[in-house]
Amino acid sequence: MLDRTAYLPLDSASLPARLGTRAELLDRLGPPALWQVREVGDGNLNLVFIVEGPKGSVVVKQALPYARVVGESWPMSLDRAFFEHEALKRLGTRDPGRAPQLIFFDPAQAILAMEHLTPHKVARRAFMEGEELPLMGEHLGLYLARTLFRGSDWSMPTAARKADLALFAGNVELAGITEELVFSDPFKPAPLNRWTCGLEDAAAAVRDDRALKFAAQEMKARFCTCTETLLHGDLHTGSVMATADDTRVIDAEFALYGPMGFDVGVLVANLWMAVFAQPGHRAGGRAQRAYGDFLLATVETLWRVFAAEFSRLWRTERTGILGGRDLFEAQGDTLGAAAALAHHLEQVWQDALGFAGIEICRRILGLAHIAEFETIADVALRARLERRALAFGRHLAVNRRDIPSIDAANRLVRTREEQP
Amino acid sequence: MLDRTAYLPLDSASLPARLGTRAELLDRLGPPALWQVREVGDGNLNLVFIVEGPKGSVVVKQALPYARVVGESWPMSLDRAFFEHEALKRLGTRDPGRAPQLIFFDPAQAILAMEHLTPHKVARRAFMEGEELPLMGEHLGLYLARTLFRGSDWSMPTAARKADLALFAGNVELAGITEELVFSDPFKPAPLNRWTCGLEDAAAAVRDDRALKFAAQEMKARFCTCTETLLHGDLHTGSVMATADDTRVIDAEFALYGPMGFDVGVLVANLWMAVFAQPGHRAGGRAQRAYGDFLLATVETLWRVFAAEFSRLWRTERTGILGGRDLFEAQGDTLGAAAALAHHLEQVWQDALGFAGIEICRRILGLAHIAEFETIADVALRARLERRALAFGRHLAVNRRDIPSIDAANRLVRTREEQP
Repeated sequence: MLDRTAYLPLDSASLPARLGTRAELLDRLGPPALWQVREVGDGNLNLVFIVEGPKGSVVVKQALPYARVVGESWPMSLDRAFFEHEALKRLGTRDPGRAPQLIFFDPAQAILAMEHLTPHKVARRAFMEGEELPLMGEHLGLYLARTLFRGSDWSMPTAARKADLALFAGNVELAGITEELVFSDPFKPAPLNRWTCGLEDAAAAVRDDRALKFAAQEMKARFCTCTETLLHGDLHTGSVMATADDTRVIDAEFALYGPMGFDVGVLVANLWMAVFAQPGHRAGGRAQRAYGDFLLATVETLWRVFAAEFSRLWRTERTGILGGRDLFEAQGDTLGAAAALAHHLEQVWQDALGFAGIEICRRILGLAHIAEFETIADVALRARLERRALAFGRHLAVNRRDIPSIDAANRLVRTREEQP
Repeated sequence: MLDRTAYLPLDSASLPARLGTRAELLDRLGPPALWQVREVGDGNLNLVFIVEGPKGSVVVKQALPYARVVGESWPMSLDRAFFEHEALKRLGTRDPGRAPQLIFFDPAQAILAMEHLTPHKVARRAFMEGEELPLMGEHLGLYLARTLFRGSDWSMPTAARKADLALFAGNVELAGITEELVFSDPFKPAPLNRWTCGLEDAAAAVRDDRALKFAAQEMKARFCTCTETLLHGDLHTGSVMATADDTRVIDAEFALYGPMGFDVGVLVANLWMAVFAQPGHRAGGRAQRAYGDFLLATVETLWRVFAAEFSRLWRTERTGILGGRDLFEAQGDTLGAAAALAHHLEQVWQDALGFAGIEICRRILGLAHIAEFETIADVALRARLERRALAFGRHLAVNRRDIPSIDAANRLVRTREEQP
């Protein structure tokens, strides 16, 4: 499709010369000779530069033709930058203000330039530092409701929805990463799996756990076959940057059509894991307990705001072919419409719990772990905390139909947390 | 996309001149001057010609730029011929011998030439004439298992599956017909709805039936969001042509990715409706009972053969990303794989019952009715039979989770049949 023969990775030295003719950057930064460039990519896939000039700063993200986490032995299409750009445009429109502002996209070079979020901090880092982000739960609840509802056949003109389904069906490689690394590898012997020393028995038990593997397969089938809305697709707390006042969602290259509960589940799983990791980051007692309470309150707020905003959109923007307004409200049956909403939210909730459970398992037994656990230097403590989280994740995945509410789920976290 | 400025509908007089230079037709038919052409399209959308020459006969199907059932006031894209051609190629490969053999496709003219199936009879006609087709149930069970399994992520290389998902997502107009005419119109006041005189109260009751409308909305959401395999998409018994020895599946222009249970449910619904219509076509007593038994036995065979063949493919061809062989068999757990199969078949069964129920409702209250009912001249009898079928369809849609087996479903038909 695209001519990429001229593709060349940026580096800090070459960036000003290569991008210094872009008017959009000159406006924001000032003259290229004065640009300061730092490569800050700590993710698994891309180059990320912060470029600072006398007038301001921007972020420049460039896809590499391989997966950075593994190296050049794992080639990966540069098209993911295209999908990220397409996704950020849509998500940014569906919940204005949550996505970073886009400056330009160069498809041939797989370069996306965007707003430098500052003084925002990656949510994971805030969790390790014990910083409270009081509006994060509300912002993310709104974000989930708006993006998930507005990308679906409950809301969109269906021809546009089907065209988007077709477009994002092309994001095969990144879908494949999720399909393999999230839903399969952690549950079988796989060369990329790794776990904290001391968890060998837990990893072996998972590989023998028919009920859990059955749940993993069910959730994988749901992920692959339920194409109800445009997902962010990688909405963990490393894709969230926040201040006390603001919350942003970045890194949308995994975007694809899938079940609403996936984004919700991955996000709450990462909040719950941050609770389990707390004893590795601050002394026990009151401070630890208080920060855990903040995180659990964030999960609760997130779900309650999500459900409330989703319900509001259901009442006011249900204009798509799945709206069903013609069958219910138009025939004077508002109770029917309300029952359909309750049923839908229950499905999203069960899916979210199932995906959350799988996400927790894969972050402890698979390739990609989370900083909150990885930075705990005391390996025995880390293993103990991960073991608790793993048991919780297993419970969610297997028993997702029998956990009736966010309170009930949070209580399970508390129970696990209190174990020796 | 395609240049269609030269598009012109065929007619019997112009066909030999327009297609007489095609080597594929000359080979099969002999010289165009000797061709006999009959227009036989009795469907809702297209022109269909049987062309006979000294050496043989072929069928020529051409899409019209509007829906024939309504007229030029309902414009409809000629692209449906493209989707039919793409679908027939795939379905024909997945279950060789069931699709008609393709001769050529002319995209600009939306013309598809194919094998003339003779002495095959449309299954609906056989049902009205009381002709037994002893192999039809087995053939259709195999067809469903093979096409539905082999078009899914349980079997296909996932990049090819996703490319097909994207391709058929373009079949927006024909999907829209199903979405509107099957899942919505029958359950609301809609200008295209019609029903037999005497069923006014039944139609009104359906529009007030919250549980049924809820089920219709659930099945519609399943149809629109569960894109697990390539469906035929319009697999009623007017799309089946058969002899005592052979069974063929035609008319695939509604093909799209959807839930496996849709094709299964639409097909068995039409077989069940043929049972309900029997008293309109032959005297009561033994002959009527025997033919009803044949039809119910066909449904039973169809489901049993489907489940058996699907299970065989599950064991032998589960090579796609949803196969799960790595989690089960590869770790010595054949029971886990068998449990996953049973769970999947149960889901297909419930979906099939739900879709069957909706199909029955729409064939009695919506735009497109079935010949088995429509040809009953005694309107009071027709209304009585349709009322029975409608009650059965309503029961299937609403109670689909509580009908455990094909025997149980067939028993419900017998019960309804025996009502006065």
